[in-house]
Amino acid sequence: MKSDATAAVLIIGNEILSGKTQEANLKFMAEGFARLGIKLAEARVIRDEPPIIAAVVNELRARYTYVFTTGGIGPTHDDVTAESVARAFGVELVVNEEARRRIASSGRELNQARLKMATVPEGASLIDNAVSLAPGFRIGNVFVLAGVPSIARAMFAACEGELEGGRPILSESIDVYQREGDFAAALEAIAKRYPEVDIGSYPFSRDGRLGASLVVRGTDGARVAAAMTEIRETLAPAD
Amino acid sequence: MKSDATAAVLIIGNEILSGKTQEANLKFMAEGFARLGIKLAEARVIRDEPPIIAAVVNELRARYTYVFTTGGIGPTHDDVTAESVARAFGVELVVNEEARRRIASSGRELNQARLKMATVPEGASLIDNAVSLAPGFRIGNVFVLAGVPSIARAMFAACEGELEGGRPILSESIDVYQREGDFAAALEAIAKRYPEVDIGSYPFSRDGRLGASLVVRGTDGARVAAAMTEIRETLAPAD
Repeated sequence: MKSDATAAVLIIGNEILSGKTQEANLKFMAEGFARLGIKLAEARVIRDEPPIIAAVVNELRARYTYVFTTGGIGPTHDDVTAESVARAFGVELVVNEEARRRIASSGRELNQARLKMATVPEGASLIDNAVSLAPGFRIGNVFVLAGVPSIARAMFAACEGELEGGRPILSESIDVYQREGDFAAALEAIAKRYPEVDIGSYPFSRDGRLGASLVVRGTDGARVAAAMTEIRETLAPAD
Repeated sequence: MKSDATAAVLIIGNEILSGKTQEANLKFMAEGFARLGIKLAEARVIRDEPPIIAAVVNELRARYTYVFTTGGIGPTHDDVTAESVARAFGVELVVNEEARRRIASSGRELNQARLKMATVPEGASLIDNAVSLAPGFRIGNVFVLAGVPSIARAMFAACEGELEGGRPILSESIDVYQREGDFAAALEAIAKRYPEVDIGSYPFSRDGRLGASLVVRGTDGARVAAAMTEIRETLAPAD
């Protein structure tokens, strides 16, 4: 059991950086990594440019246990993820026969564009796509998923069995209707007594009332619960 | 006029990487940069850890014209952005008198926690916060904004006048109810004739119908319009 497993998410797509599209895959992947006991260390959003994609893939795969990419594996000219990952690994692009069979099974013409979706870096294995047939792929510690959220979710679920995590990261939270500036000192004192858990404070405004969501996270359930009990007793006593 | 101005967005916050919170600032900032003619080259999400924040700030500020950070400037112990940016620039943290005055003007106790929100890297200038008084700050080409979306928006608007962009990046789009695999070759042929614009294809499924949103982006309005006309005539003729 690899308890120090780490991950990075690499979101490939000009549509996110132009403001056209709201990014919609990071949150569910982050929840998935937490459930699996894998620390999501960072996420990046980069443009559809092969030299950039290849360089960032190489940087991230050397640094983290797992790298998950989303986007850029469709049939159009702006889908450049497969060629970029092949470049990162220094391997050729090849047509994967199983991928070709799956895509052909739709009955639609297997033209050059569709054949591109069966083309993966040499040595890659396929990631099932329960939604629309065209698979993602894995090479080394890099998992290449589609960007369309419904497909990305299906592909992420298909990969979970291949990931070696640690103890799941547990989380408890409570909302308090106090200003952060009023409780920060008390919260910091508690955080210092529980160095093995992460305590976060996230301010909000709801229906004109200011407050904060206090979140305790860690792998030791007893310590997470004890820290939350102290927070509740100190900041939100049920007087 | 700096027509090659670039930007990076740095999102600081464990709450995004744990899956607790949906990121909600990147899209409006991306739209703002496009409007200003600044190319948003990348975005990163990193954890609330000062050594990591400082290293990434230094990497990004050397590489891009502007760096915008969000998150981690509140009063609680997990708000570590100001100290991390000071570390990146090799300067001390100092209490900014104007920031102190603004925060004190709320009438609430100016305790240690609230004073922390008036503490910025030496040499920084303030970024107005029309929502909740506590300002952001700018040092060099790094703009440090709050993470709460309503405040981040107000702060971004307050910074716009300080940014030197180029020609606004124009965009036209059309939705076609065809499969990408069927039109990819025709679209690529058009993209090759218009190398000075970006043409993207973003597949969707709506009410059970598959299609794609085709987007043309560039600074030359005539070329953007011409490329879109070709796309419309080729892929969505009004027969």
